[in-house]
Amino acid sequence: MTPHSTRIDVVMHAIRTGIASRTYLPGMRLPSVRAQAKAMQLSVSTVVEAYERLAAEGIICPRPGSGFYVTGPAAPLALAEIEPRQDRDVDPLWISRQSLETDAGILKPGCGWLPASWMYEAGMRRALRAMARADTVELAEYATPPGLPALRLFLARRLAATGIDVPAEQIMLTESGTHAIDLICRFLLEPGDTVLVDDPCYFNFRALLKAHRVKVVGVPYTPAGPDVEAFGAALQAHSPRLYITNSGIHNPTGATLTAVTAHRLLKLADHSDLVIVEDDIFADLETSPAPRLAAFDGLGRVIHIGSFSKTISASLRCGYIAARADWIDGLTDLRIATSFSGGRLAANILLAALTDSGYRKHMDTVRLRLAEAMDQTLPRLEALGITPWHVPRSGMFLWCRLPAGAEAPAVARACLQEQMVLAPGNAFSHSPDAGRYLRFNVAQSTDGRVFEVLARALRG
Amino acid sequence: MTPHSTRIDVVMHAIRTGIASRTYLPGMRLPSVRAQAKAMQLSVSTVVEAYERLAAEGIICPRPGSGFYVTGPAAPLALAEIEPRQDRDVDPLWISRQSLETDAGILKPGCGWLPASWMYEAGMRRALRAMARADTVELAEYATPPGLPALRLFLARRLAATGIDVPAEQIMLTESGTHAIDLICRFLLEPGDTVLVDDPCYFNFRALLKAHRVKVVGVPYTPAGPDVEAFGAALQAHSPRLYITNSGIHNPTGATLTAVTAHRLLKLADHSDLVIVEDDIFADLETSPAPRLAAFDGLGRVIHIGSFSKTISASLRCGYIAARADWIDGLTDLRIATSFSGGRLAANILLAALTDSGYRKHMDTVRLRLAEAMDQTLPRLEALGITPWHVPRSGMFLWCRLPAGAEAPAVARACLQEQMVLAPGNAFSHSPDAGRYLRFNVAQSTDGRVFEVLARALRG
Repeated sequence: MTPHSTRIDVVMHAIRTGIASRTYLPGMRLPSVRAQAKAMQLSVSTVVEAYERLAAEGIICPRPGSGFYVTGPAAPLALAEIEPRQDRDVDPLWISRQSLETDAGILKPGCGWLPASWMYEAGMRRALRAMARADTVELAEYATPPGLPALRLFLARRLAATGIDVPAEQIMLTESGTHAIDLICRFLLEPGDTVLVDDPCYFNFRALLKAHRVKVVGVPYTPAGPDVEAFGAALQAHSPRLYITNSGIHNPTGATLTAVTAHRLLKLADHSDLVIVEDDIFADLETSPAPRLAAFDGLGRVIHIGSFSKTISASLRCGYIAARADWIDGLTDLRIATSFSGGRLAANILLAALTDSGYRKHMDTVRLRLAEAMDQTLPRLEALGITPWHVPRSGMFLWCRLPAGAEAPAVARACLQEQMVLAPGNAFSHSPDAGRYLRFNVAQSTDGRVFEVLARALRG
Repeated sequence: MTPHSTRIDVVMHAIRTGIASRTYLPGMRLPSVRAQAKAMQLSVSTVVEAYERLAAEGIICPRPGSGFYVTGPAAPLALAEIEPRQDRDVDPLWISRQSLETDAGILKPGCGWLPASWMYEAGMRRALRAMARADTVELAEYATPPGLPALRLFLARRLAATGIDVPAEQIMLTESGTHAIDLICRFLLEPGDTVLVDDPCYFNFRALLKAHRVKVVGVPYTPAGPDVEAFGAALQAHSPRLYITNSGIHNPTGATLTAVTAHRLLKLADHSDLVIVEDDIFADLETSPAPRLAAFDGLGRVIHIGSFSKTISASLRCGYIAARADWIDGLTDLRIATSFSGGRLAANILLAALTDSGYRKHMDTVRLRLAEAMDQTLPRLEALGITPWHVPRSGMFLWCRLPAGAEAPAVARACLQEQMVLAPGNAFSHSPDAGRYLRFNVAQSTDGRVFEVLARALRG
């Protein structure tokens, strides 16, 4: 032991003792490096080294711009640090970033949305021209707290058609579907709560829930919805506060909740006072409507959310929440406090596009193109030994199993070298065999090069 | 004591004992009413009554849709409940809601923004027409994670002109100025942290910070910026993590930070590792530029945010954050997790409006109109015995003292009866004499009826 390392040990010992004696409580900031050095009459570099070694041991942790803190329940919010840093290829945020970095040259069969050319471009152009002639207040003023009344009224009528009976007063507009879920989590959750998700589930649910510092428990998903027995066991074991799911078209499996599963889920939820968030952003891609938990439950404990980023435009941000009146009131307060007002312009453009006589026809075409792309993609994948876990009846997703011996992270890495972004199963699930799966988007897999690159990656 | 009340007492005693013995920990959910009734062989109504009495005592608290919880550090997030419900007339969220409920017949001298007719309507119409002809990807695709590169480049050049040297890579777009501050708070704060604000300050800062469950400490504001001595004392006494302020034009006082105050503040901040959020949304209303903390500090510990909701359009949502590169990286991850992508369409429209040759001329006109409105409003208020705390050199705000004996909440209540929304001082400050102040917006006070209604309200 060098004299220098002894001095480092002295500092480390002092901090450890301070923590053991609860002089330094979890979440508390340690004396600054300078202050500590002065107090112990040691050099700043000695203290820096000691702090960094303690941080490496996980006893304390650095916080950007603010020194070192005692590790504990109150840890800093660096999403990448909340869980041990995974392989970046299966890190949810990394996949989002890759998919969002638009570059015309990149193939994106792992991407979660339709190509730009499949979106409702003509309707957007018409809506923008109409807005250029709108009243001054529509162009210049903040939105009313719950958002554009005419759009909320339209959404209420739309929801009624799927069996969800909700007055416009119980609908609040948000910036996006993700923003809707985020507001609900802020409203209902506290750090340390438990949330159920499907296993596999949309990877950004996990990233979002990390930001809320809650515990996430996955319930195995079946082609008929979540496994009801496992769901009941999870309620017993974890007393979760919330369950987040897609009922129309499930991401990533493309499966659809059945009416029987919906009934059983809700019965279990009733017994456990569980709140359910039903994320319905793929509604307009359905060829035949699936049961909606919100319709069965009548918005008692189910909160229904949606947006049009998957069918009209992702460039335009607007989502919504349909929920109990008292919750909408609290969510509106929270929304004002955290983002003041919603996008009145965006809501107007969206309303114009939705009520445009061309939207229905546009969606007919999209569903047809999706069905064709699904029919073409399945055999091309099967030729490579990649088999569907389930053949969805609608939507863009195909959840597929790789041939024996292939590992999704390695395949994804190899494909990225060839400018192609995949969505490896580990990003959607923490179960042991998740690395055998990939999520494909059939609308992003119409280019034959997708399968050439895949074939090379599988040959390794 | 009736037999029934005795049974209630039995339940109350059981819960109290459970809490005392730490069987029920703070934040823990109590057995459901039904479960408790069954376990104790009592009626549901007895348990309900017992729980409600305990809730009235503050020992437990109801949580919407989820039963009762032991009161403790982990309390539910109902903004209205975090602090004891104040007089609704001075509740920040109530004032926001009143101002946001647009109704052509309502006078809003208490409102925090310009009338719709003062905004950049011609530029918005041109930008919308241009967007109707834009590339498909601009109309249909998500934005890249930090937001439209061309707008970030433009903002970097704009900031350079005010002495803030920041590359486009260190600028991230957000949905609004409030959303920018909210993301920063989520990134840097933990429940229980302390945040400094100006006293008085923009009331929504307090609502926002409530949502983060942090302690808020006000530092008296002077016509030259925050009181430096009080600021230093607050740093010593509270070890705050963050300070949120406006430097260009202060809300609600209209005052401007001086260079000397900026220097002293930053020196104090350096010694305490304090992070400063500089909210610069009123920048374009300035007639001569005030010092910027971000310029002095070089974005080391200062985070600079802004938006164009006060000058171009509030219907269009787009703000920005300029900060250290590593913070922008973490903020971008957080942004993806909590709202996925920003408004690409909104960013494009904003860029078109900002780079439109008419914007500079429009702002010249707005500043001139504001100066005129200020000149007209001051004597009209003084005629009613309402005196300015400070005469601002630019902007829309006038922070005024009421004549002796008048109380802002009562005056605000009386004016609301006559369809006029005021902004009473108590919403901006918790100091004892805050109720003697009102914030006026000179641009919303050009209608002579404002002073007639005020005169009647003051006469009581």
